[in-house]
Amino acid sequence: MAKATIKEVAAEAEVSTATVSRVLNDSGYVSDEIRERVLEAVAKLNYQPSAIARSLKQDKTYMIGVIVPDISNPYFMGISRGIEDAVGAEGFQLMFCSSDENPEKEGRLLQLLREKRVDAVVLATAGGNDETVKALSESGLPIVLVDRKLGTETGGAGVLDLVAEDNEEGAYRLTGRLLEEGHVRIGVVNGPARVSTGRERFEGVLRAMRERGLREQPLVYNGAFSTEDGVRAVRKFLQADPKPTAIVSLNNRMSLGVLLEIVRSGLRIPEDMAVASFGEVEAISLLRQPGFYYIDQHPYDMGTRAGEILLRRIRKERAEEGPAIEIFRNEVNRIG
Amino acid sequence: MAKATIKEVAAEAEVSTATVSRVLNDSGYVSDEIRERVLEAVAKLNYQPSAIARSLKQDKTYMIGVIVPDISNPYFMGISRGIEDAVGAEGFQLMFCSSDENPEKEGRLLQLLREKRVDAVVLATAGGNDETVKALSESGLPIVLVDRKLGTETGGAGVLDLVAEDNEEGAYRLTGRLLEEGHVRIGVVNGPARVSTGRERFEGVLRAMRERGLREQPLVYNGAFSTEDGVRAVRKFLQADPKPTAIVSLNNRMSLGVLLEIVRSGLRIPEDMAVASFGEVEAISLLRQPGFYYIDQHPYDMGTRAGEILLRRIRKERAEEGPAIEIFRNEVNRIG
Repeated sequence: MAKATIKEVAAEAEVSTATVSRVLNDSGYVSDEIRERVLEAVAKLNYQPSAIARSLKQDKTYMIGVIVPDISNPYFMGISRGIEDAVGAEGFQLMFCSSDENPEKEGRLLQLLREKRVDAVVLATAGGNDETVKALSESGLPIVLVDRKLGTETGGAGVLDLVAEDNEEGAYRLTGRLLEEGHVRIGVVNGPARVSTGRERFEGVLRAMRERGLREQPLVYNGAFSTEDGVRAVRKFLQADPKPTAIVSLNNRMSLGVLLEIVRSGLRIPEDMAVASFGEVEAISLLRQPGFYYIDQHPYDMGTRAGEILLRRIRKERAEEGPAIEIFRNEVNRIG
Repeated sequence: MAKATIKEVAAEAEVSTATVSRVLNDSGYVSDEIRERVLEAVAKLNYQPSAIARSLKQDKTYMIGVIVPDISNPYFMGISRGIEDAVGAEGFQLMFCSSDENPEKEGRLLQLLREKRVDAVVLATAGGNDETVKALSESGLPIVLVDRKLGTETGGAGVLDLVAEDNEEGAYRLTGRLLEEGHVRIGVVNGPARVSTGRERFEGVLRAMRERGLREQPLVYNGAFSTEDGVRAVRKFLQADPKPTAIVSLNNRMSLGVLLEIVRSGLRIPEDMAVASFGEVEAISLLRQPGFYYIDQHPYDMGTRAGEILLRRIRKERAEEGPAIEIFRNEVNRIG
């Protein structure tokens, strides 16, 4: 099936190519009779206007780039689904990319999305690309940060739109629950220091310990937010002397690894090792007597907020406004 | 930062725009001295050639569309990672899309990928789009099917490239292990009938039962390959009279749901309910005494094979050849 060209459509409808273009782009006056003839020719020849050629004219690609650090983490998929539901109805399509927590790969993806002329970018950054991100934003590309701030931003007052969680406060409360139960020797499983969520959550852990007068520093394992990192952290903690009696894991993927390795080691949760997780773990119910604290998260709602913000940016409804900052506050829950 | 144009680059380098274009596209002769001048001007002005304009000239977008039914299923993410590793080194970028097991959404995504002029498509179909897929393929767009065949294809001899698993044989062996242990009342958790993997796996279950002379039909629950479907299937089976003593779950996501709901119901695995799964379940080690049969899968290897096939198709190395068919055969494993 050879592709029909706009010339063939024009010939079939006995009009000019400019008229065909006017009908298809819904621009300029065309009589109903001519419009009908063109649309019939389009249907007859199964003409597919090239989206690329069209986007050059309209200066819009209707594509939104979404870069997340781990495309298989249900948390980031929840965010993506929220974005998709917010922007899909307006005809925008998401292009998902995974940086795999690799700043260098993220840099290449940002460059690629710019080249593809996406209309906007949603970024959960792996860190290390502050200059690139700011340059893209200053060149006029709308960028909404989700979950993670740039490394150079502190507090909630950055220069870019942001939808994130109150990480410090959440981790503070989560750790507080363990300390109330009498734990003093804590193992902390964290991500790389270049990622803001990890830094902020760790601050919350330290504040909780400080306020209760604990002088002892926690044991810390820094991984890359993977299940395997949780496994490795537990192995490290079990070799410590004295061992921690409780583990705070600062991301859902690592928490699954923590739980898997504790169970494999024959330890009971929470009698032998208490566990608190920033983020839910779907599989937790496989444990007969879980005894498990966790911070619930609302990735879908965060995604819809991010989608709403970038729609307004694309439409230039708030070109002159400062950054939109949305911080979600989460509760501590207990299973078992 | 206003975007530099090719005219400004040409003026800066004191050459024609055609010469700038020849340097950037590496086409036609340009002296070393001129080339250097152009590249210096490009660097100085931070000129970004538009990938869209370039792709119109080269007739290549260097984008490969990947449509999977569930982007958060680790199985499909394994396939995607394999594809990415196979094609990334050649400069191709993946555009992930999730059909959410929705044939109508899949149809829209196929149309969108065509409009975006991707160089090839990898499709794990949700079913129901056979005519669209064939029309796209006949129009010259390379399409590699992974995991799932078109509804109209039988056996391994389709018209499109295919990388899949020997589903019938795998499910036959898996079910055989349960029957050898004396189970006769089996509950089968399956996906929608429009998906080839579910149909083929169910055939394998029936063959295993038939060959052992079992007259009784299995209890069947048809869901949509989600964790929640596994939960619902167990609830249904536990209300049956008599209840099944074993469950065969024909996809990894549903298997997690099956395990969660059995544990929540206070039943022991395998004493009260034996479980066999087509596909691994990462969280299985959370069970203290699992007793669990599963078919291992090799999504990453399937992805790299699919990537290799489509690279050859894009390069037209095998334009004249018939479809490439790769079937992976899997083993039954036991935990506990």
